[in-house]
Amino acid sequence: MSTTASSPSWESRVRAKQESILSQLPKEYLHSHLSHSTTDTTPVLDIPISLLSASELEITSLDVLPLIESIASGKYTSIQVLKAFTHRAAIAHQLLNCCLEFPYASALARAAKLDEYFKSSGGKTIGPLHGLPISVKDQCRVVGTETTCGFVANLGKKDTRDSLLVEILQDAGAVVFVKTSLSMGCMWGETINNIIGTTSNPFNRSFSCGGSSGGEGALIGFHGSPLGIGSDLGGSIRSPSAYQGLWGLRPSSGRIPYHNILNSMEGQETIPSVVGPMSHSPSALTLFTKIVVISQPWLTDPKCQPIPWRDEIFQSVTSSRKLKIGIMEWDGNILPQPPIRWAMKKLETKLRAAGHEIISWRIDQKAALSILLRVFSSDASGDIDRSRALSGEPPQQVITNSTPSVSPLTILESWDLACEKLAFQSAVLEQWRETSKTGSLADTMDVYITPVNPAVAPKHGHYARGRYLGYTGTVNVLDFSACTIPIGFVDPELHPADSGDTEDAEGKKIPGITGELDGYIRSIYDPEVYKGLPITVQIVGRRMEEEKVLGIATVLEGLLKR
Amino acid sequence: MSTTASSPSWESRVRAKQESILSQLPKEYLHSHLSHSTTDTTPVLDIPISLLSASELEITSLDVLPLIESIASGKYTSIQVLKAFTHRAAIAHQLLNCCLEFPYASALARAAKLDEYFKSSGGKTIGPLHGLPISVKDQCRVVGTETTCGFVANLGKKDTRDSLLVEILQDAGAVVFVKTSLSMGCMWGETINNIIGTTSNPFNRSFSCGGSSGGEGALIGFHGSPLGIGSDLGGSIRSPSAYQGLWGLRPSSGRIPYHNILNSMEGQETIPSVVGPMSHSPSALTLFTKIVVISQPWLTDPKCQPIPWRDEIFQSVTSSRKLKIGIMEWDGNILPQPPIRWAMKKLETKLRAAGHEIISWRIDQKAALSILLRVFSSDASGDIDRSRALSGEPPQQVITNSTPSVSPLTILESWDLACEKLAFQSAVLEQWRETSKTGSLADTMDVYITPVNPAVAPKHGHYARGRYLGYTGTVNVLDFSACTIPIGFVDPELHPADSGDTEDAEGKKIPGITGELDGYIRSIYDPEVYKGLPITVQIVGRRMEEEKVLGIATVLEGLLKR
Repeated sequence: MSTTASSPSWESRVRAKQESILSQLPKEYLHSHLSHSTTDTTPVLDIPISLLSASELEITSLDVLPLIESIASGKYTSIQVLKAFTHRAAIAHQLLNCCLEFPYASALARAAKLDEYFKSSGGKTIGPLHGLPISVKDQCRVVGTETTCGFVANLGKKDTRDSLLVEILQDAGAVVFVKTSLSMGCMWGETINNIIGTTSNPFNRSFSCGGSSGGEGALIGFHGSPLGIGSDLGGSIRSPSAYQGLWGLRPSSGRIPYHNILNSMEGQETIPSVVGPMSHSPSALTLFTKIVVISQPWLTDPKCQPIPWRDEIFQSVTSSRKLKIGIMEWDGNILPQPPIRWAMKKLETKLRAAGHEIISWRIDQKAALSILLRVFSSDASGDIDRSRALSGEPPQQVITNSTPSVSPLTILESWDLACEKLAFQSAVLEQWRETSKTGSLADTMDVYITPVNPAVAPKHGHYARGRYLGYTGTVNVLDFSACTIPIGFVDPELHPADSGDTEDAEGKKIPGITGELDGYIRSIYDPEVYKGLPITVQIVGRRMEEEKVLGIATVLEGLLKR
Repeated sequence: MSTTASSPSWESRVRAKQESILSQLPKEYLHSHLSHSTTDTTPVLDIPISLLSASELEITSLDVLPLIESIASGKYTSIQVLKAFTHRAAIAHQLLNCCLEFPYASALARAAKLDEYFKSSGGKTIGPLHGLPISVKDQCRVVGTETTCGFVANLGKKDTRDSLLVEILQDAGAVVFVKTSLSMGCMWGETINNIIGTTSNPFNRSFSCGGSSGGEGALIGFHGSPLGIGSDLGGSIRSPSAYQGLWGLRPSSGRIPYHNILNSMEGQETIPSVVGPMSHSPSALTLFTKIVVISQPWLTDPKCQPIPWRDEIFQSVTSSRKLKIGIMEWDGNILPQPPIRWAMKKLETKLRAAGHEIISWRIDQKAALSILLRVFSSDASGDIDRSRALSGEPPQQVITNSTPSVSPLTILESWDLACEKLAFQSAVLEQWRETSKTGSLADTMDVYITPVNPAVAPKHGHYARGRYLGYTGTVNVLDFSACTIPIGFVDPELHPADSGDTEDAEGKKIPGITGELDGYIRSIYDPEVYKGLPITVQIVGRRMEEEKVLGIATVLEGLLKR
């Protein structure tokens, strides 16, 4: 379908959208001296200090649990908290270009209702998230907003029904206050679309925030939202979490409801996309997951499994029991850059010092990646093309240029691919069981730790050439549960470049270059250029082991604070 | 691929297979006066009385729990029990043509080991199924046997690894002693293949045993096996269970492991095939399900969900709590024959008398059936064709003649179909939630009762024209959990034909004929011809509600005995 002569062009629709994004907000949240950049390297994280009030600064610096507590105790009203985050998010958008819509009037009305209830009930909250502002990737339907999923064609369509996940969070007292940018159809690891263009990283705007949930990453990284919802089909929660130093949970499919959340390639179930939370602490992710699971989403979402929140699993790993942790520092394919290797080593050292057992772990990520990429291209971009065609918007050159042209799979080929994926999953489960020395379940590996990506973060323009989904995508192929663990920030003193192709700066042997991509990722690391960027790894549990993964994330947070 | 000049023809491979089926068995199990028939109408169920010893008769008349108890108490040895069932199964095969392989030597060796352990341990059993012979549909891999899935091409290939389900049951002490016939690729509701031809119904051999797990149905119905494993993609466990008056569980996908079980259309996951037990009592199905789930199959099978056996759910429905039961006597599309309507009414009356709440229930089975049939034909039989081509065996005319020719779906069409299915599932979940008067979970419908099929059973040759998968297939589309409930047997006195198109024999108004198929199914019911055939309905719970479904099946068994 092409636009008819009487329809507005996609370009004019996009211009109208861009102008509308901040238009609902109070004028005082717009700071005319701010503008977006994709080249400026100065960190922008401290800019709010001079623009926010003291209470706005205090509120937006709070983590989710103390924030909720400050509302529940009556220290702040829901409206105060909403306004503080909206102001900071507006600043984030002006600097980073990360938001697509602020449903400010409805958020304000909701916050007012919460405050009213709190007042009239003598200090009761309506639920465990009473007054918590949350941001959602622009796949989540929120009544009265547009849900674009990165496509121009969806502009102008107002949602009439909330996504189940939004409904659950709102029922628990949350206030959805902003919808964040994403890559077109969620199918690219930088946040770029034809609606607002490119989103930048608040730690260094010449770097990408990652994708596809990059609007969330940039916004939460900037403390413009305390908690957000992303989605992950090949790393789309974890990469932005990594690049902004966040804790992000990629649950297994069927744990957190995808019901009535828009996506591209809907019906593709060989490797399912999942939704999950991104925030500044494992306690925030745990609270989110617990609340969602306790709501019994499986009674509404046919894809959800009736697995209750299993607190005993969470407790068992957060108690002092000895953990058995696998370490996959690299996959034998693409060597992580020095800061990532440093982070892996740091975590390993702390785990050993705390008495936990460390084993080495390696799975065939090359095989997983091959499956992942064939699933991604199985419709030869047919679904994205038809969504684009509805508005006439063009393809994104950066993607087209770096994606080999393929034909769509036949249905038998797609089934064979699903079988290949299942065989891969089975083989890894078998390998996992073999980590037991005794053959009993008690001493199998609990989780493994591995990089999120081999590169710290992609500079704008570097992503396509350095794209390697081996570390993230293997988790998607396996449908395992994973959580990102922020470890620190690039420091040229601590993280010098490797001194040559064969040894690192400390003279430790490093493996030989395996190919062009491996060489490229090694070559682009420059400690002075990467300075200050977050360094993040991930822990990975088996399917549906969110309680264990979150529990061990909590343990690691404790170890990292020591 | 076609067979080369030097390969044996498919016909000769099939002849060799047919000759081998009973060849391992003791000569005394072969009774030369017995032969298979598809026209004889005399019940053959009593034939074993004159051919089995008193102890063989007693053993094979026992239900699973007393049978296990008789071995555990030392009354019978595992070998005695194996021999008794093997003898009766051999008779079943000679009369009904229901078996594909008797791995007698290995079964005997396993039973001997069990007896040895029992003796040397002073009367201990190795597990809760110690000595229980089980039959498996010829999709299940059993080391040393051929697993054909109904394809000639698989003859001659010996399994080197058990299916996970077989492994779990054997670890619990079961003895796999026979592999049963099935339709080619499990894709037809009569049990017909090019390997051994047609399987008959022991209640009346001029009727089909149903399919695709019809070998199981015929064999267990004949008491030639106490418990068997079938699979169900459109009714393949429930139809043979219905036609032979058995209890059969169709679990939701992800509850009972399919790992390393052969199937056709592997990789098709829009509507997943599932495996489940068939037997003579709900207690047998419950024991089976409990043992399998307790083994934690999800640690091996990536498709299994980590949902433990939830005894509290089972107990809550088998206690005296009031149940809320939906009744869907007919779906507004195809009217069930008089005996089925009688059975529905009987169950409803008994439930009301016991104080349970009855509500009427109707879902759009026509929509579900449309989805199901499009999924079934989504590869335009491409997968079955390629499996057939490996041996050169011909297609089955009865299927070809009654299946419209279609083109394979494109991958985008198959994804759209998956979305349509998901929307249907969501709509039914919503309808289910609306059965609550209060909006609370406590008073929503527990399960609904509905026919398994509109016809009591298909006479050989009637199936293709009278094929209606609305009642069974809707459950597959929804991936709900269901159990067949045998109610009685056709009795011309109790179940006369409707006296006209507008009223039944008792003068009660019946709905007008909706179309050709509805008219056909009404027209073929003849109480004298159908006399003695089992009458069975099913109860249906939501996804993963096996404990509830089995608990309510137990309650119904109790009510039916009163």
